[in-house]
Amino acid sequence: MDDVTDDASALARRFAFLAEIDGLKAVLRQNRTIGERRRENSAEHSWHLAMFALVLGDRAPGLDLNRVVAMLLVHDIVEVDAGDVPIHGAYDAAALALVEEAAAARIFGLLPEPQRDRFAALWREFEASETAEARFAKALDRLQPLLLNTLTEGGTWAENGLTEAQVMARYQPVIERGIPGLWPFVEALVRSHYQRHATTA
Amino acid sequence: MDDVTDDASALARRFAFLAEIDGLKAVLRQNRTIGERRRENSAEHSWHLAMFALVLGDRAPGLDLNRVVAMLLVHDIVEVDAGDVPIHGAYDAAALALVEEAAAARIFGLLPEPQRDRFAALWREFEASETAEARFAKALDRLQPLLLNTLTEGGTWAENGLTEAQVMARYQPVIERGIPGLWPFVEALVRSHYQRHATTA
Repeated sequence: MDDVTDDASALARRFAFLAEIDGLKAVLRQNRTIGERRRENSAEHSWHLAMFALVLGDRAPGLDLNRVVAMLLVHDIVEVDAGDVPIHGAYDAAALALVEEAAAARIFGLLPEPQRDRFAALWREFEASETAEARFAKALDRLQPLLLNTLTEGGTWAENGLTEAQVMARYQPVIERGIPGLWPFVEALVRSHYQRHATTA
Repeated sequence: MDDVTDDASALARRFAFLAEIDGLKAVLRQNRTIGERRRENSAEHSWHLAMFALVLGDRAPGLDLNRVVAMLLVHDIVEVDAGDVPIHGAYDAAALALVEEAAAARIFGLLPEPQRDRFAALWREFEASETAEARFAKALDRLQPLLLNTLTEGGTWAENGLTEAQVMARYQPVIERGIPGLWPFVEALVRSHYQRHATTA
């Protein structure tokens, strides 16, 4: 990380990137914030996820937690161009992958090469979900909206008419794979939510 | 970080904290986002700052950059109770410090003790601004709104009628102290802004 060889133009590229990613504050996700019940944007979501990593990092011993945090800070930046795709909707995964690849090339390409390559690699690692760090990050990316949903009257589950079984099927595998041992606690949150709202189902 | 000794109640405390800090998404700052020109909230601000740290971290060699990132993720959490205090306004620093101390005790106190102490220490380190990491973090906390202001027609500077000299006086010392060598580039951004808007001053 000691590659301070900026000329003014390299520094200008860093600042152009930092200005460009401000656009992530305008990308709205489906789920809602707890207090205001407005839709969450991808920038504040990324902050919340990084805090999830700091708070739950010791639940997955042996991880490079700093890489997890960096990965989570970077993982949604392609949405500045590609937008957010809700997990409960239908979409063309192959077409989306192309759009996101182009977004990564454009946005990370604003940076000088060493940083461009580093951030693109973090984003790709998250997407591939093969390393323990990426699986942990993916699990948190599933866990955070789950927590918000249980605290906002079902949130996106209620909006999309999801049954308890559908919720379990969509969240359990990713969370279990990324954070061993956590699922029973999370499952209890989901069950408790559906029990409270059984009469409205 | 390998202190995985949660019983259900310790895990519930972690989740209570993660739900509580969602409130940072409802704390509005003075400065505006670039595209939407709405006031930025402290959660998305914290994400943006953490990205500033990743992008500019090598400008201050020898830092523990991971601690900087964690510090920036945590630095505004007391605002869930205490709100954001704009740097261009007048306020009672001693009274604010008391309010923020109480907020830190309440909010970090939601966590099990080892994490409570770790996050409170990061927040205190940022506030004290004595370590190289805290000075770097403070410099970024000044630099980010500066960049946003130059890209939003002066933003809070225009709203508060600040002269170029006042801007220089409020930003330069903190930025120079925390990120050696960066100021000339930043100063040029400020000068360029005031030159473009000279007719409206």
